[in-house]
Amino acid sequence: MTRIVQKFGGTSVADVDRIKNAALKVKAAVDRGDQVVVVVSAMAGVTNSLVDLTQKMGPLPDAREYDAVVSTGEQVNAGLMALALQALGIQARSWMGWQIAIQTDGVHGKARITGIDTQELDHRLNGGEVAVVAGFQGMGPRSRITTLGRGGSDLTAVALAGALGADRCDIYTDVDGVYTTDPRIVPKARKLNKVTYEEMLEMASLGSKVLQTRSVELAMNHKVRVQVLSSFSDVPGTFIVSEDEVVEKQIVSGISHSRDEAKITLLRVADRPGVAAKIFGPLSDASVNVDMIVQNVSEDGKATDLTFTVGRADLDAAVKVLTDNRNDIGYERLTSDRAVAKVSVVGVGMRSHAGVAQRMFQALAEKGINIQVISTSEIKISVLVAEDYTELAVRALHTAYGLDAE
Amino acid sequence: MTRIVQKFGGTSVADVDRIKNAALKVKAAVDRGDQVVVVVSAMAGVTNSLVDLTQKMGPLPDAREYDAVVSTGEQVNAGLMALALQALGIQARSWMGWQIAIQTDGVHGKARITGIDTQELDHRLNGGEVAVVAGFQGMGPRSRITTLGRGGSDLTAVALAGALGADRCDIYTDVDGVYTTDPRIVPKARKLNKVTYEEMLEMASLGSKVLQTRSVELAMNHKVRVQVLSSFSDVPGTFIVSEDEVVEKQIVSGISHSRDEAKITLLRVADRPGVAAKIFGPLSDASVNVDMIVQNVSEDGKATDLTFTVGRADLDAAVKVLTDNRNDIGYERLTSDRAVAKVSVVGVGMRSHAGVAQRMFQALAEKGINIQVISTSEIKISVLVAEDYTELAVRALHTAYGLDAE
Repeated sequence: MTRIVQKFGGTSVADVDRIKNAALKVKAAVDRGDQVVVVVSAMAGVTNSLVDLTQKMGPLPDAREYDAVVSTGEQVNAGLMALALQALGIQARSWMGWQIAIQTDGVHGKARITGIDTQELDHRLNGGEVAVVAGFQGMGPRSRITTLGRGGSDLTAVALAGALGADRCDIYTDVDGVYTTDPRIVPKARKLNKVTYEEMLEMASLGSKVLQTRSVELAMNHKVRVQVLSSFSDVPGTFIVSEDEVVEKQIVSGISHSRDEAKITLLRVADRPGVAAKIFGPLSDASVNVDMIVQNVSEDGKATDLTFTVGRADLDAAVKVLTDNRNDIGYERLTSDRAVAKVSVVGVGMRSHAGVAQRMFQALAEKGINIQVISTSEIKISVLVAEDYTELAVRALHTAYGLDAE
Repeated sequence: MTRIVQKFGGTSVADVDRIKNAALKVKAAVDRGDQVVVVVSAMAGVTNSLVDLTQKMGPLPDAREYDAVVSTGEQVNAGLMALALQALGIQARSWMGWQIAIQTDGVHGKARITGIDTQELDHRLNGGEVAVVAGFQGMGPRSRITTLGRGGSDLTAVALAGALGADRCDIYTDVDGVYTTDPRIVPKARKLNKVTYEEMLEMASLGSKVLQTRSVELAMNHKVRVQVLSSFSDVPGTFIVSEDEVVEKQIVSGISHSRDEAKITLLRVADRPGVAAKIFGPLSDASVNVDMIVQNVSEDGKATDLTFTVGRADLDAAVKVLTDNRNDIGYERLTSDRAVAKVSVVGVGMRSHAGVAQRMFQALAEKGINIQVISTSEIKISVLVAEDYTELAVRALHTAYGLDAE
């Protein structure tokens, strides 16, 4: 007996016809003999409209009431999906977060799942009933409705798959899988059959929109096999699995890029212990996340240059914090640049292969692309380049690592 | 300390601005020092759209899923109203039916309230918090969401007022009270300051749309003082109260009319015991409600004529049932007429006054209006007339009983 979770995103359940189409995917699984949990998002656009309504009621809406309002889109679709399944002759019922219950903490608007009561669901799945669960929502302390934040329905699906011991969690969306890179930039990009949790995590944090970091982490922690696939076609998608399932490891699985970057350089910073804390402490206090950092070797032992990147949306705030704290930090001049992009190569295979970075630098050098900052982790290498060179860099690397489709 | 329930109907909370306007009514009560429970409907039109969605999923939608879907309109408005109140500096939170809980039976789509847990609400009201309750919804067996059917939010309000011992239940709507008759027919119609539960019950069942019969009954049973008033003006509305509160009883309080009638006559029905059961039994089995009934005295002791009314929408079904059962019933001919209307005078004072009916018959006779059927209760007299005479009859009676405004 196979038990699966099928999650349908907002575009996959955007109207009556698409809900009926999604219901056919569920029916196919039921007909195969699978036990099925369906997780639904709200119709595309509905949640945004509800968010707008809450914002029109006054400044800084109470997050608990915000949650009560914005969680209704998923409730509607859970009921409609149950009806669509019943119309196909399938035994099904809807479940709201509080009915299961999906317990969360009290951080409204971005709650964390703390536990799932699986006994009743388990019993009914064994009895052949399909459970249609409203995604994105849970029940916090004092029986208030909570929502899980961006990508919340994916989280619901992965968490349920983990708690119910599902064999697979299928995430139906409007793309048919995870690609070696953005196909809009590289027409020869290939869909990956498998990618490891670690690689997917890096790709998510490096700009891939397919699955949020939180959902990948949860899947990794609970060893949930996730498949990302399209609800508008019938081809298999990309499996996100643990490393031991990937027999033939690619050195590099994909090339990511992000334009959500800005660069700040502090010139002639005093080269003494504690200066880094004086720079990054105030930035952290202002909720500015700092990403890549390079510090040049001091030439005279007195002062050095320090370069780092922040989210582009945070640049103005970061510059203000650093200017306000200039005397305390002690630097001569500050320069900043919005026109930068981060290009990364990701792959678990690079752990055991030398020369991966060298190939990257060489490929970029051959195209005359200057590397401004470099940052590495165990399974990725990122470089900062001038934004104008983004596509050129991605294409050069895609070819250099042999990822182009035949 | 005064404790009140304020209920806002769909037109009173139809958009962001109207919700904010309704919130000002709540604020006025809070500023007076009242403890306030607010009950909200969905935005006008929203529930119908949700009903449409459920019907598009397939034939005969599961009423449990229907309830999960259509109850969301009230949930949205409960959250938005709480936000609007908070923006005015008022301590407020939303409550869904299951959070209170408002317990109901399991008749989904038209559930009956079986109990309300008031302890937490009571505690919070005493602490100065405004409770914003989603109307129309409750929690049935096995924690499923139920809805209360047409006029359900009024029911929620009256039931909460009863359970919480509120001093008053204000029903805000788009009319400013209960009138002596339909002002569109009689421009001189007057708004009543007070009307008794019994009169309101008769008016509701006779076609007044202001308040559903079920809500009036509930108010009467729990002695809840109800006020019907407009959310778009600041004038007092009509109080619906028990008879002992009405000091100066009107003989006749109002003139109702209903065009939702159709007349059936069975000619030469066998005049023997049990024939009425043979006629009305099959109609009842077919869910056809019979209203006014007259049976003429048999001239020859063998056969008589029987006339009765049914809802106009039920006429075809009724005729089919009677035709199918013709041999069993035993009658010569059946005639029917859709072009009839029921005109009624209602007033608790007629209990103690003679001549009320006589004045009615005389007023109609003076205008040349033929009375087809008469039916009376303790506090109302209804007559069936040709539909064309409806307005003329209503105006004549309004004048005859001295109800015209000065």
